[in-house]
Formats: sequence, C-alpha cells, structure tokens
Amino acid sequence: MKTYLDCIPCFYRQALDAARIAGTDEIKQKQIVDKISQLIPDFPLEASPPEMGREIYSLVGEISGVKDPFKEIKENSNRFALKLYPKLKQEIDSSEDRLLAAVKLSIIGNIIDYGAKNSLNVVEEIDHLFQGNFTINNENNSTTFKYNQFKESLNKVNNIIYLADNAGEVVFDRLLIEELVEELGEQVIYVVRGKPIINDALIEDALFCGINEITKIISSGSDAPGTLLEYCSPEFIRLYQKAELIISKGQGNYEALSEEDRPIFFLFRAKCPVIAEDVGCKVGDIVLVGR
Amino acid sequence: MKTYLDCIPCFYRQALDAARIAGTDEIKQKQIVDKISQLIPDFPLEASPPEMGREIYSLVGEISGVKDPFKEIKENSNRFALKLYPKLKQEIDSSEDRLLAAVKLSIIGNIIDYGAKNSLNVVEEIDHLFQGNFTINNENNSTTFKYNQFKESLNKVNNIIYLADNAGEVVFDRLLIEELVEELGEQVIYVVRGKPIINDALIEDALFCGINEITKIISSGSDAPGTLLEYCSPEFIRLYQKAELIISKGQGNYEALSEEDRPIFFLFRAKCPVIAEDVGCKVGDIVLVGR
Repeated sequence: MKTYLDCIPCFYRQALDAARIAGTDEIKQKQIVDKISQLIPDFPLEASPPEMGREIYSLVGEISGVKDPFKEIKENSNRFALKLYPKLKQEIDSSEDRLLAAVKLSIIGNIIDYGAKNSLNVVEEIDHLFQGNFTINNENNSTTFKYNQFKESLNKVNNIIYLADNAGEVVFDRLLIEELVEELGEQVIYVVRGKPIINDALIEDALFCGINEITKIISSGSDAPGTLLEYCSPEFIRLYQKAELIISKGQGNYEALSEEDRPIFFLFRAKCPVIAEDVGCKVGDIVLVGR
Repeated sequence: MKTYLDCIPCFYRQALDAARIAGTDEIKQKQIVDKISQLIPDFPLEASPPEMGREIYSLVGEISGVKDPFKEIKENSNRFALKLYPKLKQEIDSSEDRLLAAVKLSIIGNIIDYGAKNSLNVVEEIDHLFQGNFTINNENNSTTFKYNQFKESLNKVNNIIYLADNAGEVVFDRLLIEELVEELGEQVIYVVRGKPIINDALIEDALFCGINEITKIISSGSDAPGTLLEYCSPEFIRLYQKAELIISKGQGNYEALSEEDRPIFFLFRAKCPVIAEDVGCKVGDIVLVGR
C-alpha cells in the first residue's frame, strides 16, 4: 500500500507516543519532530507507511537512547494474554467450526487493549467481539471477510508461513496455528520481526507464548513495523517465495505486502480511515482479504 | 497558550482539510505538506497555535490559488443559522435567566455542525446541548464554567468588545449581544477577522447576520485564526486596551489571548485534548473562564 498524505499527521502522533513511552523530555521530543519534518519532503508517497515507520522508530531509539521502549508493554501483553489462553482454547473446543473460531480469535488478538487494567473487561470485550460483527460478515461471506475462500485455500496447500504482528497477540495466533498444525504438521512457520520495533513480536515473545512447542519460529530479519521484503533476511525471502500460503497479521504487514503478487491472506482490523479506504471497508471492520 | 507538540499532527490535518476544500490535487497537497515540514523546525513552541495556523492557511491560499476556500461553507452556515434565529430567540424569551440562556446559545453556536443536512437534527442537537451539561456546570458554578463571575463582571462595566469566531455562530452571538446591548446600549462592539481565514467570521458575515442592526462592527485586522495582537490594526488595539470587558469566542481566540493580562472571558467548547489540558477540563466540556 502506498503512503497517503493522511498518514503524515499519524507519523508525528506515533513518534510522540513512542518518544513519551521511551521517557524523553519535551526537548528531545521536539528534536524527533524536527528530524521527521526534515524527512517528509524527501519521502516518496509510493513507499509504504512502514518504510517511514522504520525511520521514525529508529530516530526515537537514537535520540532517546532507548532501543526497545515497548519491552515492558510487550512482556505485560504476553503475560496477560497467556492467562486468557485456557478460556480461549475452550471457546474453540466448544465451537461448531473450530477454524472459524480460531480465525476470529486470531484477529481479536489484534484488537484488544492489553493495557486495560481489569482482566474481566478484556474477557467481556473478547466475548463481545467474538459474538459480534464477525458472524454477520461471515454469514454474508462479505468482500472484506472472505472466510470461505480462506478455508478452501487452506485445504489445497502443504505449507504456510504465518507473519506475526504484536506481542500478546501471539497467544491468539497460537490458537490458530494449533488448528493449522493439526492439518499440516510443522509445515507452518511462525515469522517474527528481526529487531525491536514498536510492540511487534520478536523471537523472545514467540518463545514466551509457547509457539516453539507447536511449530518452528523464524525471524524475518526486518526492523520495520511491517514485513518490508527489502529489509528481510535471505533465509526469510527463500521461505516467502516458496510458501504455498502466507497468513499475514496486522495493518503493518498489510501495508507492506498488499501489492505483492503472492498467495497471501491478510487478517486484521481496519484501525484507521486510510486503511479502510484502501481495503474498501469501514473503520473498525474486521478484515480477512486475500487470494 | 503555547503550542504543544501534539498540535503538530493537527497542523497537518488542518492543512490537508483546507487544501481539499480548496479543490487542490494530491501534487499540490504534497507541496503544502512539504512546505509545512520546512516551517516546523523553526517554529518556536512558545508561539501560540494560531501563529502556525496563519502560516498554514496562507500557504494553502498561495499554492491553491484560492484565497477564501471556506466562502461557500460560511455563506451556508450563515443562512442555516439565520433560519434558526426565531426559535432561538423564543428559547431566550421563555427562559428564567435570559443572560444564562444567551450565554449557553452563544457557546452552542461554536459547537453545532452546520454541515448536517437535516435541520431537524440540528435543532434536536441544540435542544440536547441546551438542556445538557451546561446546567450541571452552572449549578456547580464549576471552575471551567464561571457564569456567576461573568455575570458579576458584566454588572460592573460600561463597555465590552466581543471577539467573534466562526460564520454561522454569528447568529448565536447576536442573541447574546442583544442581551448585552439591552444593558449597555451600543457600548458593545463586535470584532471580526480582517481577512479570510478558515470559516472565521468577516465583516460580510456580521452584516449578513444583522449584527449592524444592533451594534457596531469592526475588523481586528488580524488574518490569523485567533486574535493575535501583533497582526491587529492600531484601531483595534486602542479599543482592546480601553475595553472594560472582553468576551472572546472560540478556541482560536483562547489560544491567542489566554496569557493576556486583561479582563477577558473565554466562551468555547474544548474540542481537543491539548486545549482541555490547558484549561483543566475534559474534551467536549463547555468552557466559560476568565477574570
């Protein structure tokens, strides 16, 4: 996906959020803002938003001196989500269509705010989402929730790579991966980022959430908040090119790969008007698109 | 009020909105964004947001070639608000405290979306706001809705200048001005901007809404979206300095004048987190502060 002009205000907002999480003072925050301003005129809109994201978070790291400002947030998310795992697994065990339930939960993992203090609220939120517009979308098999098509594709393939998004969400990915591994064995590979970037999942998060007990984990090598192929390792690129199916989680991976001519399904919630416009849905919609 | 770093994303959003209303294509929009990016590093945060607003809208005018992109919007707002006038006047006539009702409506004029197609909806919105948290705020005479203090100040003064905000809103200002003129005669002067800036009221808007039938109108000379004294005419500055009371409408005028040591009351709704923080209220709160 190209960068829209409306992404630019958002770049600044993200930078300020990250700078504050990194504990910077206003002087350093202004330095970061000024450096971003210097980058904007040379940033080509044909590049995808994670290209700029990569530069922004690198700037924040450099100026704040904090290389992984979201580390604690990621650890908390993982711990919180792991506690939910037994209840989520039960949800799948008691569902009529296990794959659909796992797909739903995998996307729900992309949505919930692990920062919410009250775990009861989060459980209620999950229930609400689980019962919510997913069902409507699925019943209609709408153009932006192509579950039937996804299911058919799964039946035809022998291997899958699964591109992770955030820490915490990894636990929800695990539920879907368990269903996939049931069919394909360890021909499902879980791919995390190569270096700390926002709250995106790293090898350590995948290990903490127990993905290694189920299947293989590799790093894409990318340090962008999306799988930008030009920054990925040769090892990942080989896997990516021979993968019969790619499951891509989150907005960042959609932004990075939406124009790729590969068999990819994108699972995420459209969190901003720019993405919603690009996908052809409304903000807040649950999305499962691909081919 | 100083400029907060969180104003910066908003500057870009405002620029894009205005550029689109001016009918520019994406190439010109990118030019505007790039020019703003060049201004940011040299923009001192000690300056108030309307200082940057002035530069932004001037850039949009220059690059788009459209000097008053909001002209039609302003005309529609005026026409729409004028149609409501008889009903609003009735509201005041049937109220126990005419001044309070007029103050409420004057602030409501700063809130409503004249773009709403259905005039019935707007009337309902006004009713809702009129009955709503104003009353609660007033009953408590809270620190951010100092109606009693405002009323006491009014009783002590012989002249007032009233700084307008938006077109359309002028009709709601008229209702309050009619109450003020009842007490003070034409010692109430209505002040509009000197040049087109966003949808801010100009002389033509004040005339269209009939302010001239009630009291005097002058232009501040300012071309900023707020009464920045350094850009105002000597005529206005003289009036400003001798005014016994200044009624200041809207966020822009608050941003420009909040640190002035003059007898000013600010009437507006806190529309963004930055203002809410500065005032010490919540986003969406109705504000009447001053001394």
